Amino acid sequence: MTDKATAAAAIRRMGVETASWAYANSGTRFKVFPQPGVPRDPYEKIDDAAVVNRLTGAAPTVALHIPWDKVDDYDRLAKHAEGQGVRIGAINANVFQDDDYKLGSVCHPDPGVRRKATDHLLECIDIMDATGSDTLKLWFADGTNYPGQDSIRARQDRLAECLRETYDRLGERQRLLLEYKLFEPSFYTTDVPDWGTSYVHCLELGPKAQVVIDTGHHAPGTNIEFIVAFLLRTGKLGGFDFNSRFYADDDLMVGAADPFQLFRIMHEIVSADALAPEAGIAFMLDQCHNIEPKIPAIIRSVLNVQEMTAKALNIDSGALADAQQSGDVLKANEIFMDAFYTDVRPWLAELREEQGLDPDPIAAYHRSGYAEKIAADRVGGQQAGWGA
Amino acid sequence: MTDKATAAAAIRRMGVETASWAYANSGTRFKVFPQPGVPRDPYEKIDDAAVVNRLTGAAPTVALHIPWDKVDDYDRLAKHAEGQGVRIGAINANVFQDDDYKLGSVCHPDPGVRRKATDHLLECIDIMDATGSDTLKLWFADGTNYPGQDSIRARQDRLAECLRETYDRLGERQRLLLEYKLFEPSFYTTDVPDWGTSYVHCLELGPKAQVVIDTGHHAPGTNIEFIVAFLLRTGKLGGFDFNSRFYADDDLMVGAADPFQLFRIMHEIVSADALAPEAGIAFMLDQCHNIEPKIPAIIRSVLNVQEMTAKALNIDSGALADAQQSGDVLKANEIFMDAFYTDVRPWLAELREEQGLDPDPIAAYHRSGYAEKIAADRVGGQQAGWGA
Amino acid sequence: MTDKATAAAAIRRMGVETASWAYANSGTRFKVFPQPGVPRDPYEKIDDAAVVNRLTGAAPTVALHIPWDKVDDYDRLAKHAEGQGVRIGAINANVFQDDDYKLGSVCHPDPGVRRKATDHLLECIDIMDATGSDTLKLWFADGTNYPGQDSIRARQDRLAECLRETYDRLGERQRLLLEYKLFEPSFYTTDVPDWGTSYVHCLELGPKAQVVIDTGHHAPGTNIEFIVAFLLRTGKLGGFDFNSRFYADDDLMVGAADPFQLFRIMHEIVSADALAPEAGIAFMLDQCHNIEPKIPAIIRSVLNVQEMTAKALNIDSGALADAQQSGDVLKANEIFMDAFYTDVRPWLAELREEQGLDPDPIAAYHRSGYAEKIAADRVGGQQAGWGA
Amino acid sequence: MTDKATAAAAIRRMGVETASWAYANSGTRFKVFPQPGVPRDPYEKIDDAAVVNRLTGAAPTVALHIPWDKVDDYDRLAKHAEGQGVRIGAINANVFQDDDYKLGSVCHPDPGVRRKATDHLLECIDIMDATGSDTLKLWFADGTNYPGQDSIRARQDRLAECLRETYDRLGERQRLLLEYKLFEPSFYTTDVPDWGTSYVHCLELGPKAQVVIDTGHHAPGTNIEFIVAFLLRTGKLGGFDFNSRFYADDDLMVGAADPFQLFRIMHEIVSADALAPEAGIAFMLDQCHNIEPKIPAIIRSVLNVQEMTAKALNIDSGALADAQQSGDVLKANEIFMDAFYTDVRPWLAELREEQGLDPDPIAAYHRSGYAEKIAADRVGGQQAGWGA
Repeated sequence: MTDKATAAAAIRRMGVETASWAYANSGTRFKVFPQPGVPRDPYEKIDDAAVVNRLTGAAPTVALHIPWDKVDDYDRLAKHAEGQGVRIGAINANVFQDDDYKLGSVCHPDPGVRRKATDHLLECIDIMDATGSDTLKLWFADGTNYPGQDSIRARQDRLAECLRETYDRLGERQRLLLEYKLFEPSFYTTDVPDWGTSYVHCLELGPKAQVVIDTGHHAPGTNIEFIVAFLLRTGKLGGFDFNSRFYADDDLMVGAADPFQLFRIMHEIVSADALAPEAGIAFMLDQCHNIEPKIPAIIRSVLNVQEMTAKALNIDSGALADAQQSGDVLKANEIFMDAFYTDVRPWLAELREEQGLDPDPIAAYHRSGYAEKIAADRVGGQQAGWGA
Repeated sequence: MTDKATAAAAIRRMGVETASWAYANSGTRFKVFPQPGVPRDPYEKIDDAAVVNRLTGAAPTVALHIPWDKVDDYDRLAKHAEGQGVRIGAINANVFQDDDYKLGSVCHPDPGVRRKATDHLLECIDIMDATGSDTLKLWFADGTNYPGQDSIRARQDRLAECLRETYDRLGERQRLLLEYKLFEPSFYTTDVPDWGTSYVHCLELGPKAQVVIDTGHHAPGTNIEFIVAFLLRTGKLGGFDFNSRFYADDDLMVGAADPFQLFRIMHEIVSADALAPEAGIAFMLDQCHNIEPKIPAIIRSVLNVQEMTAKALNIDSGALADAQQSGDVLKANEIFMDAFYTDVRPWLAELREEQGLDPDPIAAYHRSGYAEKIAADRVGGQQAGWGA
Repeated sequence: MTDKATAAAAIRRMGVETASWAYANSGTRFKVFPQPGVPRDPYEKIDDAAVVNRLTGAAPTVALHIPWDKVDDYDRLAKHAEGQGVRIGAINANVFQDDDYKLGSVCHPDPGVRRKATDHLLECIDIMDATGSDTLKLWFADGTNYPGQDSIRARQDRLAECLRETYDRLGERQRLLLEYKLFEPSFYTTDVPDWGTSYVHCLELGPKAQVVIDTGHHAPGTNIEFIVAFLLRTGKLGGFDFNSRFYADDDLMVGAADPFQLFRIMHEIVSADALAPEAGIAFMLDQCHNIEPKIPAIIRSVLNVQEMTAKALNIDSGALADAQQSGDVLKANEIFMDAFYTDVRPWLAELREEQGLDPDPIAAYHRSGYAEKIAADRVGGQQAGWGA
Repeated sequence: MTDKATAAAAIRRMGVETASWAYANSGTRFKVFPQPGVPRDPYEKIDDAAVVNRLTGAAPTVALHIPWDKVDDYDRLAKHAEGQGVRIGAINANVFQDDDYKLGSVCHPDPGVRRKATDHLLECIDIMDATGSDTLKLWFADGTNYPGQDSIRARQDRLAECLRETYDRLGERQRLLLEYKLFEPSFYTTDVPDWGTSYVHCLELGPKAQVVIDTGHHAPGTNIEFIVAFLLRTGKLGGFDFNSRFYADDDLMVGAADPFQLFRIMHEIVSADALAPEAGIAFMLDQCHNIEPKIPAIIRSVLNVQEMTAKALNIDSGALADAQQSGDVLKANEIFMDAFYTDVRPWLAELREEQGLDPDPIAAYHRSGYAEKIAADRVGGQQAGWGA
């Protein structure tokens, strides 16, 4: 068990990165339900992210998505963030929404399309330079819908080539995170379907390439904490896109569907001593708040990560190791579950008060009048969404 | 084994219903890739459906989706169809795209929203009266995303009440098909997640309510042909929304992902003597052609259903029953597989020639110049999609 | 929220039925690892079940499995149980371990095998009469491994016929619970794969037939609490076979894999007022303790059910209903989660002390020396397992 | 499209390895149904394997499983095989059936158990030396059933250490294949759950370590042919354990559940030019014939692999590449499906006749009287099974 002071320090230092696009409208292929007060540009997204950070004290960075967050002056955007008390986190590339990308981007059979896609990746690194971001997050919608549609192997060769060019452009303090996803929007193959595929490409690329785990991108039954432990062991875990799911890539609030899974994941992080910022594991949210108000949903998500981390820090690791070593299955499980069942919320509320924060960030948000304010202020213009 | 003449007659009489919306643009939440020549209104959709029917001789009806296919004069639309050699099939209700439906339609906690949704269902029956359609197909996007969000049980009560009012409005020769779906766009519960739920509601409603099976709406591993056999036994199978999937509700072309499954489904239909139109089983397509050209994809889908049906008709049912009765597992399986592996395409080509059709409908389509014609003609206006 | 006194009374009255075979050896197809002290006959199994009941105060009945628990004198067995403070619960039939059942039992193509199987079911009712059991639990391993192997439909007819004969033999205060299972040991079809199939047969049989839910018998992604709510609404839920799983029918300790799911299930029970014994819902365990000591694992399982029930009783149902009715998704979810995250273990420990029990049943078991005693005493003879 | 002569040569050279244990009794945890004529020792297993090879001309090797196939004199066993026209294939290690292995073998927390397990692996290499086998196949049942039971990461360290010692003992012409499996008999984690884990260990070990794919060991929805293509690209695919499944590790006859998947897998092999023996891909069967007679089931399985390979050889690869390159989704899929739907059985029958074989190996087997002969001869003794 981590002692209370150490645990408190760990919690205080842990940051959860929120995503600019999560403050914007999102939905399913069936319908996007717009919400009042949704930001109309990257500046307003950052304003919302700053609110989450001010209330939780735990969301110091915000990820951007290009081109959704394209602006003329990235330096100004970075300064705006700074002024609001947050920093620009990962830059997320988008090579799936141009008409040219119907059959893929970096894996497309046409070299012209691959050129265009790679250029976009390079442009994202320019934006990293301009904003001070140190992380390029790559997710490719590439894949096929029908058996025979394209050569699985040839697509890998194309992917490797584009990744190489991108990797070589990275600056010294920059890195690339390669995300994998089992399916959607491709329905027969995706070109990076699992952690193994991402790992092999990252290994070939070099030390600045790492795997990022989106918790919603696995086949049913996949043991995600195993992947976490395994990648930590090999030094190739770069971070998480957190969210939760019951079925496919549901993109629900992290911890909402299976809080025990989140606890198990955070246990692997804690037990590998990978919680501290120096460990370089990015804890990012990548969610869609389709039917619930976005800002309080994101606050809730940050709190969920924090609570499960606190529970993981609570595990009596010495006793656990003893029970494991002696093969006492029930005792080891009991020690593990005891930490999960212990309510850490009062302790976290105390920590917040010590930091000068409201002990209940959700209630504080509702009291703040911010929701009413943005609903009133943000009229006119085009609400941001996945398309803009 | 059905003798050749009987099998030929069965194939000739079998109709596959195509869906108006499949001729329009569709996509995923990530992107809709528009295609050239896509219809701009219900009349043009029917024109495309008529092409599919003329080339295959096997797609005599076309389903409508309200409000996507709303017109001022349904009698005119029905006559347009007739003039093109096709008829209006099922009317599909849509209670998921209005902003009011964010938390449900017929299961919504607010009685005002339920009233609005039910009124839409009643309006669809008006359209059935006007178009001569005999089938109302109901799929509800209703459900919840988060545990605790609403009362599962109360939603069932609301559903039952709205279905009752709708059912009671049906004319003598009209029926209601209730579709089920495991998930999407709801990600914690859906209100009609499985065939059992649909069945119980249909049983309570009465003989004019039946279950419709969308082949893409099941949990991984579900044995769909078992459901087919079971519902046929109880007299509650109303029809199919055919498509295929590798993962979730992928909506790929039927038979593309697992042709053997389609064969097994058609075997249950054939062995229950439920292929003929009098049996009242509707064989409908409900697919999304996101990356492939729509009309030839739909022709291919009709052919896939036809081919697997022909294979099922080819099973030596007497020998199969003998092997089954004697417990000869390998022999029974061999007889079954032999029919699947036997190539029926030459025979179907012959049948087409006897009907005065081109033996190869896909090639005939490409030769026809229709694709080029609609791409040239259908300029201006708004291409139809899921939203219009 | 149920007030504390009412909640305490509900917890005190709730009984979890343990299974005689869970005290015996079990394993996978790869290996059964025997454990010291395992019972050698039904009397010793009941002794172990009585220990669980004495320590938890919550396991008053024990299920039998025939023929594994066959004895010459059932009256004596029932009296032995009574003497130990427990009663005989459900009688579980076994028609899957005789060589004749290779291709099925009540669904077998051979009427002779069906006769034999049905006779076994009738014999189980005789044993119910002799032991005072009021519940016959039916699970059939019937199914097929290969497409074409047998007629899905004909098997349903055979099943219905055998169930009818069995149902008609039930006494006035006896009932039949029909279990379903997606797969294993059959790998293509099972003859009762899902709740819908079980429901339809129970409905045809009559009011003394009900569905039993084994929590491990579903396809990935199935929302079990929906089924619970739905069956409660129709009056056809008879009970549970509790256990937990990550993959297939893993038969782990209930609550071990997904405690939040167990909480959601118990919420449906509580909110339908179906917790009390009069509601007739049997809360049974059906697990395999392959690698962990059996008695403490069963105690843990009883506690897990009790804890999740206590959490469910803790839900502020009034506030929840308000949030649901007003469509406040986040508030409703928050109220729900708050009950899950609140630690009920101290309160349950108090309740135990009020009942004169040790507040920590697991620790009390280890202190009792019972494990050492049975390991020393139960030498010689044949340890009980699934085969005997 | 491979020309006919080349295709015929490829088919003639392709060997499918059968497994000694598949001729023995097998079953599920619920029941093993014994069959008449089942071998009682490794010699009789080889006799049966030789029958399969004589009838198909395509099963030249037979895998052994240690200790199930332990004999005093391996040289004599190898000579017996040779005399029957077959050779010894892979040696399969078994570190899951000793009582010591309850909590694992090479990953066990106790170094004594790991020593014992590693010694068994080394012993298997001795047997390779004695029998001339060049392949050690490693599958570990290692894993945990409960969260917290053991350290996921520590188990990886132990695994790596034992694999290293084993690898270093391999002779110059010997290799090690590392199998992965998602679950069973472990139900929370397995220590080698997926191809990525196996790949990383093999990469660390060196060029004589490769991944083996058991087609039944994946999560639902996993695209196996992607893994095949990916591993071929990296040079780390060692072979297959073929079987088929609808749900979990069902171990049904390969091609029985999803023949189209098998075709897609063989297409990747063919298109990577990896079919020839020189490519070093082992095509092995690993199945359980629980309810069907074993020898004809194995013949059927060999034929299924052969038929899907012939179909894959039939793909018009030039036209396919053109369609793929030009982005013609429907055409590419059509070319692919055309090969699948074309009946190759008559051509394969011709090939057999050219080789002096019966065109219908199953019928030839039934005519041969072998089944009756072994049922009559193999009386007395102990039938072989998974335990012996």
